[in-house]
Amino acid sequence: MTESKTGVKKRLPLEGITVLDFSRVLSGPYCTMVLADLGARVIKIERVGTGDDTRAWGPFVDDESAYFMCFNRGKESIALDFKSPRDRALLDRLLDKSDVLVENFRPGVMDRLGYGAEQLARTHPHLVYASISGFGHSGPFKDLPGYDMVVQAMGGVMSLTGWPDQPPARVGTSFGDLGASLFAVIGILAGLYKRSRDAQGTHVDIAMLDCQAALMETAFARLDVEAKVPKRTGDAHPSLAPFESFAAQDGRVVIAAGNDQLFLLMADAIGVPELALDPRFLSNDLRVQNRPALTDAIERITRTAPIDVWLGKLTGAGVPCAPINTIDKVLEHPQLLSRNMFIHVQGESERKVKTAGSPIKMSTSPDEDVTIVRKSPAVDQHREAILRELMAASGAYASQADDGSDDDKLKRSASLAA
Amino acid sequence: MTESKTGVKKRLPLEGITVLDFSRVLSGPYCTMVLADLGARVIKIERVGTGDDTRAWGPFVDDESAYFMCFNRGKESIALDFKSPRDRALLDRLLDKSDVLVENFRPGVMDRLGYGAEQLARTHPHLVYASISGFGHSGPFKDLPGYDMVVQAMGGVMSLTGWPDQPPARVGTSFGDLGASLFAVIGILAGLYKRSRDAQGTHVDIAMLDCQAALMETAFARLDVEAKVPKRTGDAHPSLAPFESFAAQDGRVVIAAGNDQLFLLMADAIGVPELALDPRFLSNDLRVQNRPALTDAIERITRTAPIDVWLGKLTGAGVPCAPINTIDKVLEHPQLLSRNMFIHVQGESERKVKTAGSPIKMSTSPDEDVTIVRKSPAVDQHREAILRELMAASGAYASQADDGSDDDKLKRSASLAA
Repeated sequence: MTESKTGVKKRLPLEGITVLDFSRVLSGPYCTMVLADLGARVIKIERVGTGDDTRAWGPFVDDESAYFMCFNRGKESIALDFKSPRDRALLDRLLDKSDVLVENFRPGVMDRLGYGAEQLARTHPHLVYASISGFGHSGPFKDLPGYDMVVQAMGGVMSLTGWPDQPPARVGTSFGDLGASLFAVIGILAGLYKRSRDAQGTHVDIAMLDCQAALMETAFARLDVEAKVPKRTGDAHPSLAPFESFAAQDGRVVIAAGNDQLFLLMADAIGVPELALDPRFLSNDLRVQNRPALTDAIERITRTAPIDVWLGKLTGAGVPCAPINTIDKVLEHPQLLSRNMFIHVQGESERKVKTAGSPIKMSTSPDEDVTIVRKSPAVDQHREAILRELMAASGAYASQADDGSDDDKLKRSASLAA
Repeated sequence: MTESKTGVKKRLPLEGITVLDFSRVLSGPYCTMVLADLGARVIKIERVGTGDDTRAWGPFVDDESAYFMCFNRGKESIALDFKSPRDRALLDRLLDKSDVLVENFRPGVMDRLGYGAEQLARTHPHLVYASISGFGHSGPFKDLPGYDMVVQAMGGVMSLTGWPDQPPARVGTSFGDLGASLFAVIGILAGLYKRSRDAQGTHVDIAMLDCQAALMETAFARLDVEAKVPKRTGDAHPSLAPFESFAAQDGRVVIAAGNDQLFLLMADAIGVPELALDPRFLSNDLRVQNRPALTDAIERITRTAPIDVWLGKLTGAGVPCAPINTIDKVLEHPQLLSRNMFIHVQGESERKVKTAGSPIKMSTSPDEDVTIVRKSPAVDQHREAILRELMAASGAYASQADDGSDDDKLKRSASLAA
């Protein structure tokens, strides 16, 4: 919590919320990363020894995974052996004091461990319990493994991505995982809000494939209405023109002039006002129909000068345009820098790694301080601290304990960890 | 609200929440669509006459936009003239009884209308006020127009999407808009949760470009650690292999066997167990380094039989795999159908249009009833009903009104609308 100039306390919206995070790899950890960035305390429950799979994924700095650091910044870690009664007692205590549980195992795994959604709904009805899986907890595909690549292919986005005369391409980021992560965060927050009113938890069942369908924009409606299967269009918007990249002297430049007024401004800005009077280009619909002729007419001009010249002219005229930035250009983009969008993460080694921070800027949250390095945990790093905390809490309500057996187990566990 | 078999009342988590929606086109309307799907009441504030821009966007059914129907299902509409004192009085009343405001104008527009975030923070401090814009409300780019295509190009995803020997491709859905929509929903729900604890609203400032950076996965970390600019890889995952599509007899099949155990299972399933013993393919790192040789070795086999044969063998062996579905196949996918992921939307005409429903399945929400058609509103369709409702509420607290002038304006407005 920090104090703003006006003296009003600024705090992150999820301060005080505890998330027990059973998830691994990407879809779950990205979800709990967003929750941590919003102020929640996230405790990772890891496999004893190796921990999260991505601890073995590159790129590496001093043998540590930068992949892991990016998505596990600011979290705590405790490694639990689900066959150990001591560890199960500890987990029961953690469940008592947690608000949210996140897991991304295949359906059935958490049930077999004894921590399935229906089981915990009876013992811990206050929990907002979120499951992320490839296909969800119902339906004929529920037991199949779902990975990013699988749902990108199965859900349709690959069929729409890439150039028409080439094989389908993958979205250049793990759209299958991250789409599910964001819908899971939304389900969790909606569940917490609901709980603030009715004091009851819920089970949020997110399927990566469902999320792919939800993100297909108007593709299904276009098929239903036009009876034509939508196809990939390279870099052109299927129903707006010009809304794509054009060849310049030194590369390609994006021009997004999807309505008549912007098209007029564009034609003027690149020095061919007569383009806007051409009967083939009088409306967006006509421009979409005559896209090859439009591309020719525009590129005849744009090929004559470099990208920067066109960006200057178009921006000056108020026409949306852009260079196609490579990642190095994005990392030094003045707008992203001014929005504090890059932060440093770090594991156990000295080396800090750059990654993107939170895009959720709230007037009531403290400003992002990009000089603070976000640490990711070593496997089981916080066992001792968590045990001590639980013991202290347990002491505080010892008189309420029904038989003390859990306390005894906890104490043994603590002396073992110390 | 419906009753479940066990007698527990099921209700959507945002029932009772009112959202005033000043947004148009896609990023804002998709955000408020998610809120409506979660049970919020969404009142669209539209431009008098033409309303939301997308009402003029195809595909059309009986001259009505199916594009508009998809993202505005279940919302109400009132058209307001911001120059009319009557309409401003009405809007003030609506603001009093709303919880959330969403707008996606360029920074400054809402301020000039008199409804900027700072202004409303004084008069309506309870409001969770969300702004979505291309570049956000701060920084050197804040006044520039930001469209999906612009931020896809500027934010780096295009540089990573497509085949290496072809120009960058766009993500086959409006990833720039939808990414921002989802982060906006998260900010709004976090704000509502915060408000449930401290009774204060907030301003959520979402920039499409920030969201692009946040969704670039490990691209920045890879650049920082390896000092190589990440490049597009067609359909291959940059750091997992095999995790891409392979040529079969009748098309391409995706195989996602990104760890040693899955690779072993895959080699067995396609009938070449010796592949797993090949020194070039012993670990994921080696397989990524020797990807061309790996592709050759796998395709030598997969080319000999059709996609379905490989899907059968691989699925049987527990290896993640998938066909690259076109949109018609997605629309009839048995898993999505069993998850009730397709719904019908409708405008004023008889014709219903298929689109994707909500992927947020909660145990405490009523099951999605796909037989219910979700209606989108005509421009200003709900003016009369809203006025009547405000009048009724105003009657209920008439004695508290300080001077009655707003009420008088409302009454004149109501008689005009009737």
